[in-house]
Amino acid sequence: MSSLVRTGISLERELLADFDRLIARKGYGSRSEAIRDLVREHSVEADVARNKVIVGALTVVYDHHQPRLSERLIAAQHHYHGKVLATTHVHLDARHCLEVVIVKGRSAEVQHLADHILSLRGVKHGKLVMTTTGKQLK
Amino acid sequence: MSSLVRTGISLERELLADFDRLIARKGYGSRSEAIRDLVREHSVEADVARNKVIVGALTVVYDHHQPRLSERLIAAQHHYHGKVLATTHVHLDARHCLEVVIVKGRSAEVQHLADHILSLRGVKHGKLVMTTTGKQLK
Amino acid sequence: MSSLVRTGISLERELLADFDRLIARKGYGSRSEAIRDLVREHSVEADVARNKVIVGALTVVYDHHQPRLSERLIAAQHHYHGKVLATTHVHLDARHCLEVVIVKGRSAEVQHLADHILSLRGVKHGKLVMTTTGKQLK
Amino acid sequence: MSSLVRTGISLERELLADFDRLIARKGYGSRSEAIRDLVREHSVEADVARNKVIVGALTVVYDHHQPRLSERLIAAQHHYHGKVLATTHVHLDARHCLEVVIVKGRSAEVQHLADHILSLRGVKHGKLVMTTTGKQLK
Repeated sequence: MSSLVRTGISLERELLADFDRLIARKGYGSRSEAIRDLVREHSVEADVARNKVIVGALTVVYDHHQPRLSERLIAAQHHYHGKVLATTHVHLDARHCLEVVIVKGRSAEVQHLADHILSLRGVKHGKLVMTTTGKQLK
Repeated sequence: MSSLVRTGISLERELLADFDRLIARKGYGSRSEAIRDLVREHSVEADVARNKVIVGALTVVYDHHQPRLSERLIAAQHHYHGKVLATTHVHLDARHCLEVVIVKGRSAEVQHLADHILSLRGVKHGKLVMTTTGKQLK
Repeated sequence: MSSLVRTGISLERELLADFDRLIARKGYGSRSEAIRDLVREHSVEADVARNKVIVGALTVVYDHHQPRLSERLIAAQHHYHGKVLATTHVHLDARHCLEVVIVKGRSAEVQHLADHILSLRGVKHGKLVMTTTGKQLK
Repeated sequence: MSSLVRTGISLERELLADFDRLIARKGYGSRSEAIRDLVREHSVEADVARNKVIVGALTVVYDHHQPRLSERLIAAQHHYHGKVLATTHVHLDARHCLEVVIVKGRSAEVQHLADHILSLRGVKHGKLVMTTTGKQLK
C-alpha cells in the first residue's frame, strides 16, 4: 500500500451540509471516506474506458430446462479460462438458476464474454459490473 | 451564495496521482474544482431520488411528417405549462426535428412529462437529464 | 424514409402482459411503438460506442457571477463552431443560469466539448445526452 | 412456464438492418431472442422502480488488512440473514479481496444493504446489480 496523502477542498457551506446528511443516511463514518469513494469510482470508470485490466462480475439468470444451455455456458467460460476466476451458482426456483461469473481481464474482453453469454437462448436477464483489481487503488 | 468552507481528505498517493492525470485531461484547472463536481453530482442524484424540485431537459428527435404529432407535442407542453420554462427547436434535416424542452418541477412530475412525450408515435428517440435549480448548490 | 417492414417475436405470455401494463402507464398507444423505441435506443447506444455522428445536448447550470466564465463558455462554443447548432439560455434565479448547447459531431468530439465545459470553474453541474441525427433511424 | 405468444412489430427497414448487424456481432442466434432481451430488461427495470422482490448481486473489493472490516462485513450479512442467499470470495492479491453477495428482497431493502456495506471503511469499490428472481419472466 502506498502512503496516504492529504488534500483539501473548499466548497459551499450548504452543499457540504447536504452531503453530510446524505452520507450519514448511507452509513458513512466519515466525510473523508465518502469523498474517497467518489474519487475511486471516477478512477474505476476511467479504467473501464481506457481498456485497463479490471475485474468483472457477470450476473445471469437462466432457465436450466433450455436444451444445451448449461453446456454452452460452461463452454463459454472455458473459452476464456485464463480469465474466469470463480463461478457461483444459486438455485432460484425449480426452473431458474442464477450464476455469477467473476472474470479478470481488459474491459473490452470482459465485455465481449458478457455479450456472448447474455445472447444465449434461455439466458433471461443479466448484467455486468466492472470493478477494480485493487492494484489501481493502492 | 453561502460562504465557502474547507474540508480535508486523506487518500492513497497513487489514487490521487491517477485522479490528477484524469482531471487534467478533462481540462480541470484545480483538484478542488474536480472534487466539488463529484460532490455536487452526488447531491443532485439524491435530489432526483428524493423527488425534490429539479430542472429537467428533455431532448427528443421526431419526424415532423407524422400526422398530428406537432399538435400533441404542443398540447403536452401546455398541459404542464407552469413547468415548461423554454423550448428550443432545431431542424436536423428535411424530415427530422430536434426539440429540447426545459422543465422545472419535482423529479417524478418531470419524469411523467418525459414518459408521455417519449411515448408519442413519431418521436424517434429521446432522453431526459435532470439537473439542479441552483438553489441546492448554494 | 425507407419503407416499413414487419417482424415477429415470440415471448412468454406473462412477460408480454407485464410489458403491456408498463407501456400503457407511460402512455404508449401501441405495443409496436414501444418495442420500436427499445430497438432505436439500442441502435443509438451502439452509434455512440462506434463514434458515429450523433447530436448531443449538453445541459449546464452555472453561476454567472463567476469571473470570466461567460467568455470561456462562448470561447468553448466558438472553438467548436462548426458543431454547435444552437444554444438556449434560461435565467434560473438571480445567480444561476441554465444553458443547453446542442451539438452535432462524432460522439468522441462531442464528449470532449462536454468535458471541457463541465470542467470550467463556476459550472456547477451538467449532463450530456447523445441522440440520433435522425439519419440512422430512417 | 407460461405458454409463448407471438406479437408482430413493424419498423423501418434500415433500422432493422442496423439492429440485425448489432446483434449478430454480440452473438445472438435470432432477432426474436434479442428483442425478448430488450423487453425483459425493460420489465426488470420497472420491477426495481416499483420495489418488487428482486435478486441483487453486490460486488465489493476491500482491503482485508483494514481492522475489524471482516467482522463488519459478516455482521452486515447476518443482519439481513433471511435475504442473503450466497457469498463468493476471491483473493485478488495479498491485500485485496473481492466478494459477491447475492441477496433476494425488495429493491429498496437490497439497496439499503448495499449502501451500508459500501460505506464501510476499507471497502474500496463496489457495485450493485439487480436482476429478476425468474418469477416475473415466466
